This record gives sequence, structure tokens and C-alpha cells, in this order.
Amino acid sequence: MTTRIVELRRSILKKNDELAATLRQRYATDGVLVLNLVSSPGTGKTAFLEPTLRELRARGSRVAALVGDLETDNDARRLAASGAPVRQINTHGICHLDAEMIDKHLAGWEGVELASLDYLFIENVGNLVCPSSYDLGESIRVALLSVTEGEDKPLKYPTLFNSADAAVITKMDIAEPCGFDRDLALKNINQIRPGIRIFETSAKTGSGMEEWLAYLEEMASRRPS
Amino acid sequence: MTTRIVELRRSILKKNDELAATLRQRYATDGVLVLNLVSSPGTGKTAFLEPTLRELRARGSRVAALVGDLETDNDARRLAASGAPVRQINTHGICHLDAEMIDKHLAGWEGVELASLDYLFIENVGNLVCPSSYDLGESIRVALLSVTEGEDKPLKYPTLFNSADAAVITKMDIAEPCGFDRDLALKNINQIRPGIRIFETSAKTGSGMEEWLAYLEEMASRRPS
Repeated sequence: MTTRIVELRRSILKKNDELAATLRQRYATDGVLVLNLVSSPGTGKTAFLEPTLRELRARGSRVAALVGDLETDNDARRLAASGAPVRQINTHGICHLDAEMIDKHLAGWEGVELASLDYLFIENVGNLVCPSSYDLGESIRVALLSVTEGEDKPLKYPTLFNSADAAVITKMDIAEPCGFDRDLALKNINQIRPGIRIFETSAKTGSGMEEWLAYLEEMASRRPS
Repeated sequence: MTTRIVELRRSILKKNDELAATLRQRYATDGVLVLNLVSSPGTGKTAFLEPTLRELRARGSRVAALVGDLETDNDARRLAASGAPVRQINTHGICHLDAEMIDKHLAGWEGVELASLDYLFIENVGNLVCPSSYDLGESIRVALLSVTEGEDKPLKYPTLFNSADAAVITKMDIAEPCGFDRDLALKNINQIRPGIRIFETSAKTGSGMEEWLAYLEEMASRRPS
């Protein structure tokens, strides 16, 4: 049984990687920066994306978001308040997004053309494990971690942090009541992924958001146009 | 491909259910109350289990714990400080515990006999999705949710909350700085699982722990002995 599972898993991942490579090529051709946001449920991906979408739009950028959840379209509705086009992907029991879901939802997205976007944000299903294995063709994988979660998460979920291009610490406004050990968290992230860009943010107070937005604009400016 | 996955998944779950039924029978014969704790990473399962193990031991109960994590034995070391026997299960990439892992780790656990225990706590891998599908033969499935995670988690992860026997809200001490909406959280839990026992706790201040311990003792007293 185990051998069959390992083989089938390998075959699924291989198929996913092939489609992700096609998507990656398409994003590059269309000149859109695609970010895949991965974290535990409740880390605050949606709360972090709200000001991100709003601010980028205010600066004249064209942004859109795909949002993965098992059930409900709560997050999509929250993000749509930014004015950006947002599409919910309900996975109905699947604990991650895969390249096929992205491909399908991009295809049927009325009024949204990749080539007319500067940024596409993909909010993955809240899960620190399986999303790490599924390449969505993204330009940048972002691992998020909140100050409430425990500083050893990077050590416990090395695959995610090791495959991430940037790390975002969320909810810095409640770092103190949570007893968050900042030095330890930074040390653990750097142990798994040395030199990774780390942003310390609060969606509530806005702290750290300026640095994050500057990073996005810098990464977008490097895309072929 | 999808059909093959669904079939294989069904076959894996069926096999798991059969072994879980055997384990359940064994727990009953041995008179041990087995609890399976499931939550998001960072909800505070370990911090909640620390005083639970310590207090039950102080009252003369015989307790032990199995702790699932992808990597590291941090949690097992934390729990072992209670003096209870604790065994780490490293899943190395698997995002949940299954009945076979439990069976294997019970078998090779030096110095620990199920029949000599009152309580066995199983701390599952931090994940709100896949652990819901894997029966470990537990007497009580506990879904944990922290005040930092967002009140709509029960709606977004209905399978877990719908299959849980008790719900524990953790980190009540930081409910206020987190802007936790208690009424909404209780409403959402009850919408998915009407009438479920809910404990509002703080491992830091100890609030709610007395009620939780009384519940455990009540449930244990109902076991055949």
C-alpha cells in the first residue's frame, strides 16, 4: 500500500510540476508578478492582503487575487472590498491549491486577463504542510507566521520555509502580550532559509507594510514587460 | 487520475478505520480514555496539554501522551517535563497521524502499558484538514481554536468541528488585544456542531482549566473498568 501511495504521489506531483512550469512561462510572457501566500489557518493572510491590495491599487497598480478555502467565500468577500477582482477557489476537502485549480480558475475568470495585471496574489488554503509540495508556477512564495504561533514553526515545517522566497511575520501589534521572542523567530527562520527576506508587519497598525510594498514594486520592476 | 486518487483514498481510509476500530476496542478493554487533540499549528495544543498532564498527575491519575509532528521533538520534550511518559511521533512530511502510527508507537513504548493508564492524550500534527479524516480510535476528539485565529474557522473547517466531541478555545488571556468576538465564535461552533461542549481556556492564567479537568474526570469515570 505504501509503495503505491508513494508512486501515485510522485506521479501527481510530477503532473502538477509540469502544469506549473507552463503557468510560470505564461506569467512571464504576460508580465505579471504572481505571489503564493502560504501559512497556518489564522495567521492572517487575508488581513495582510487587504491593505496590500488596497495600497497597490492606490499607487496605480493592477492587482487581482485568487483565494483558496475548503468552504465559504468569506475571504474573497473581504478582499473584494479593496476593489480588486477576487475569485474564490473552494477546494471542498482538498487541503491545498494545485496548478490545475489555478489554471482552471484563471481560464474562467470573466473580465480578468493576466496580461492586463501587474500582480496576482494567490492566498493558499491555511495549511503549513501540503501547499509546500504544490508549485503553482508562482514568481514568489511567501511563508507567513504570526507572533501567536510559536517561534519554532520554521523548524517544525522546514519544507515550507525552505521553499519560500520571503517570510512575513504578522500581528506584530500583539507581539508583547503574546510573549513573542523576536530574536528566536528570526534565528529559526534564518536557520532553515539563510538570508531570506523577512518582513515584520501588522495589518492593524500598518507597521512594516511600506517595506513590504517597496519589495513588491522592486520585484515587479524586474519582470520582463 | 482523479478517480484513481479517490479510490485509493477511500481504500486508505477504510484500512485506517478498520485498525482504528481495533484500537478503540483495545482502549475500552484496557479502560483508558484516549483523546485526540486537533488544531491549526500554533493554536497551543502543547501549552494546553502541559497543565492538563501536570494537574491530572497531581490528582493521582496515570497519564501519557503521544505527540505528532513532521519534524523535531520540541513538543515531546516540553510535555515530558510534566513527569508523564511522552513519546514523539515524527511523520516526516505526512500531515496527520493515522491509526497505524498509533498502533506502532504504542507497541514499542518501553515501560508504558495501556492497561495501566487512565488517560492517553494524542497531540495530532498541526493541521485543520487531514487529521479530521483519520480516526485514531480515540474516545474523544477535541478541536482547539485560539482567539488569534479568526472566529470563522469552524465554518471554514466544518469536517473537524463536525466530528469533534469537545471544542477548546485557547489563549483567552489575549482575547482583548486580539479583538476576539466571543459570541460570534461560540455561535459558529454551535452552528457546525450544535450542543458541543466548549471550554474557554488560558494555559497562561489557568482560567477554564478546572472545568476542563472536571470534564475529563467525568468522562473517565464512565469508562468500563
